[in-house]
Amino acid sequence: MTERIQKKEYLNKIMTAMEAASLIKDGMTIATSGFTPAGYPKEVPKALAERIKREGTGLKINLFTGASVGDELDGELARAGAIKRRLPYQTQKDCRDKINCGEIDYIDMHLSHVSDFVRYGFLGKVDIAIIEAIAITEEGYIIPSTSLGNTPAFVENAEAVIIEVNTRHPKELQGMHDIYQPLKPPNRKPIPIISPKDRIGDTFIKVKPDKVKAIVLSDIPDSVKSFPSIDETSQQMADNLIGFLENEVKKGRLPENLLPLQSGVGSVANAVLGGLVKSKFCNLSIYSEVIQDSVLDLIDSGKVNIASGSSLTLSPKGMERFCNNIKEYKSKIILRPQEISNSPEVIRRLGVISMNTAIEVDIYGNVNSTNIMGTKMMNGIGGSGDFTRNAFISIFTTPSTAKAGSISSIVPLVSHCDHTEHDVQIIITEQGVADLRGLSPKEKAKAIIDNCVHSSYKDMLREYFNKQMNKCHISHRLDEALSWHYKFLQTGTMKNS
Amino acid sequence: MTERIQKKEYLNKIMTAMEAASLIKDGMTIATSGFTPAGYPKEVPKALAERIKREGTGLKINLFTGASVGDELDGELARAGAIKRRLPYQTQKDCRDKINCGEIDYIDMHLSHVSDFVRYGFLGKVDIAIIEAIAITEEGYIIPSTSLGNTPAFVENAEAVIIEVNTRHPKELQGMHDIYQPLKPPNRKPIPIISPKDRIGDTFIKVKPDKVKAIVLSDIPDSVKSFPSIDETSQQMADNLIGFLENEVKKGRLPENLLPLQSGVGSVANAVLGGLVKSKFCNLSIYSEVIQDSVLDLIDSGKVNIASGSSLTLSPKGMERFCNNIKEYKSKIILRPQEISNSPEVIRRLGVISMNTAIEVDIYGNVNSTNIMGTKMMNGIGGSGDFTRNAFISIFTTPSTAKAGSISSIVPLVSHCDHTEHDVQIIITEQGVADLRGLSPKEKAKAIIDNCVHSSYKDMLREYFNKQMNKCHISHRLDEALSWHYKFLQTGTMKNS
Repeated sequence: MTERIQKKEYLNKIMTAMEAASLIKDGMTIATSGFTPAGYPKEVPKALAERIKREGTGLKINLFTGASVGDELDGELARAGAIKRRLPYQTQKDCRDKINCGEIDYIDMHLSHVSDFVRYGFLGKVDIAIIEAIAITEEGYIIPSTSLGNTPAFVENAEAVIIEVNTRHPKELQGMHDIYQPLKPPNRKPIPIISPKDRIGDTFIKVKPDKVKAIVLSDIPDSVKSFPSIDETSQQMADNLIGFLENEVKKGRLPENLLPLQSGVGSVANAVLGGLVKSKFCNLSIYSEVIQDSVLDLIDSGKVNIASGSSLTLSPKGMERFCNNIKEYKSKIILRPQEISNSPEVIRRLGVISMNTAIEVDIYGNVNSTNIMGTKMMNGIGGSGDFTRNAFISIFTTPSTAKAGSISSIVPLVSHCDHTEHDVQIIITEQGVADLRGLSPKEKAKAIIDNCVHSSYKDMLREYFNKQMNKCHISHRLDEALSWHYKFLQTGTMKNS
Repeated sequence: MTERIQKKEYLNKIMTAMEAASLIKDGMTIATSGFTPAGYPKEVPKALAERIKREGTGLKINLFTGASVGDELDGELARAGAIKRRLPYQTQKDCRDKINCGEIDYIDMHLSHVSDFVRYGFLGKVDIAIIEAIAITEEGYIIPSTSLGNTPAFVENAEAVIIEVNTRHPKELQGMHDIYQPLKPPNRKPIPIISPKDRIGDTFIKVKPDKVKAIVLSDIPDSVKSFPSIDETSQQMADNLIGFLENEVKKGRLPENLLPLQSGVGSVANAVLGGLVKSKFCNLSIYSEVIQDSVLDLIDSGKVNIASGSSLTLSPKGMERFCNNIKEYKSKIILRPQEISNSPEVIRRLGVISMNTAIEVDIYGNVNSTNIMGTKMMNGIGGSGDFTRNAFISIFTTPSTAKAGSISSIVPLVSHCDHTEHDVQIIITEQGVADLRGLSPKEKAKAIIDNCVHSSYKDMLREYFNKQMNKCHISHRLDEALSWHYKFLQTGTMKNS
């Protein structure tokens, strides 16, 4: 115990999760650690959900996190009906369902915006921050666990802090974090990162001792799922992407060791990172959000020298592997607050290559990342906008069809727009690659239809496009532009009957 | 002559505009100075247009500029049918018409992207840069004229350079420019601006002497129009905006002297800047793109201490006024390359307040800045995305209706999306202010309909929204979402018959 909680005065703040949960009142804004889904508090939210169910008081909170968190937080509280407002990102089924049925007000934000919005007072007062830590130092500093997210800004701006000290996480994580908090304008200075390997801050979070109202012990692991094995479509997309990067090197537009890589989470991202292990690229670096199992492969294979992110999101197997070789991995992984991992300033300076997944893309290169058929929230924009907008090259991948072919992922007009034609440079499906750089909308349409669309939809899109393209810049028949989605909702397929 | 062209070896490069224009061949990419519309070359493009008309050869070029340019460039070349491809922004009628009829391929780009795209080779080779200068120094350095735009990157990356030395501009402009060019990743460093007043570069552009193929003399002024007097709607929008800023100060979310201001160009922007002259704000600063006449008012009134931009876009009267007090204005105005004036890094660090104009806004806060009815290019996105995406507070203004009330500027779904719901924070019409920060889509819709919509459309939008909002996150009837635009195109009004 005293190994994990070294500040003696804090020992008397240790209490049960239920006691700590009793500090949470109806209407409060609760801001927690946790990023995609690592390092989130588990015991206190579980206790809170239990208390709500038992008391039946209908207590509701506003819940702010770093990004997605596990079932113990989003799931338990959503099922208890305890979430009134949620931001900035989620991936949990029950939480999503309550968002889509209108019960939870969801604010789908760029991940890089959240700390500033809290700091600037744009989201109101934060009542309590609940932070998962691996330890508390003699000085009372918090050593965060497997993620950083918005934790530093939440701790600084919350009125009270609850710390969950999770003994499941190895204490050797200490020293992996690099915590830098920008000042508010007009006093903000350049973020002094000029390479993914740069450390610019502290390895701990300072907190005023009288703000710490409770310390709760925990032993619950992060609930990170293993990825399913890579399917043929994902493999083909990964091959296309690596082929594209090889060609950029050949053309002299990228250095031989590329530039820092950012990759979204998911099976395609997993396939891409897996593909890099087998590629001839070396001396690679990663400047991304999430350090996944596949990053360990890249480090082990000697392909990646440094990986910077905001979370260590490892499957149980990955975590075991990490722990068995922790010294080596620690020297090559840096965890940063999400306002730094996703900083437009740093992303543009480093020249990050962004690789994210689209739900759908339209013929002019607009991307929908969030709302299926424009109306059903999937997860949220996450960091895809932070990276896409500032990348050296911005890449989106999507299988050309979804739902066993009944949906074309390439449509006349996106039903929701998260990334505009101005920001999207490369579209990759299992069919091929469309390079949109320097193309007019009409040329983009041609490149996308020729290279990315599935054969079942190619003629239909060509017909739509040819009907429109004659003598225009961008053109749509506004009564037809969303008809593919409408047809799907009515008939269950976008195909012509 | 030797006062303006101090490098003796350059005197024998002086030639007529027609001789210089003969260097331009079919298929070339020509990149010019010029920004909204100041400091663009005039004599050579005029001569080129004349040559093309005379020779009838159908010569076509790709034309890259900083932003919009005057009739002598975009107008003359568009009318001569000489533009094959145009980027990144334009506002000239004949050029726009040829874009909208599909004759010119227009690439509508974020202004901050252009220099990097050229530097990275994403837009192919630049054959000739044509740069307007006020002088050439003894060392052969170029002293740019009334704008900087992409000039430094164009000069560095072009194979050949033509310089138009324009004696109409006062030579006292020398010293106003601050020229800083970032290195390519992975060698890029922080841009060391921490205040709008910081000078971080040179006052001249270096060029290899053997790249300079021609020097042409010019005496043509920039064709900048005076703004019409401020109408009632614009004044009401400006009042609403200033009221909003005052309230932010009162709530402690902005300092008393605000933060650096960015303002688009146009009558509303003009009214806003005019309103600031009469406001109680003082010690203001500007970190924007365009230094307009109204900025001179703000400097004269002692309200603004420093104005940083990429162009000095003054009406003939404004230019006269500028020249009469040039020493004073020079000490308070800095001209920067557009990759610095529009730098995401600097904008977010300084905490710029962005104020831009929307063509239309939808109930969920998405903004269309470019394409009327989704299909007719107006001007382009310009710098609005660079600022909006990284602003401390991002504000969009639009009159609630257009075309004498037959168009509602607030619609169910934007017909083209340039700024997504994730980026847009404040909507202002003459009706009022909608503050979207921290709101879910449904709450945004309510705030926008209640505060910003014209009375003629309020019930219609409420009906659309109420039909949709029941138990959802974002909802649309996809067969109705664009029906307002469709109706307008069919009947000439969005109103119900």
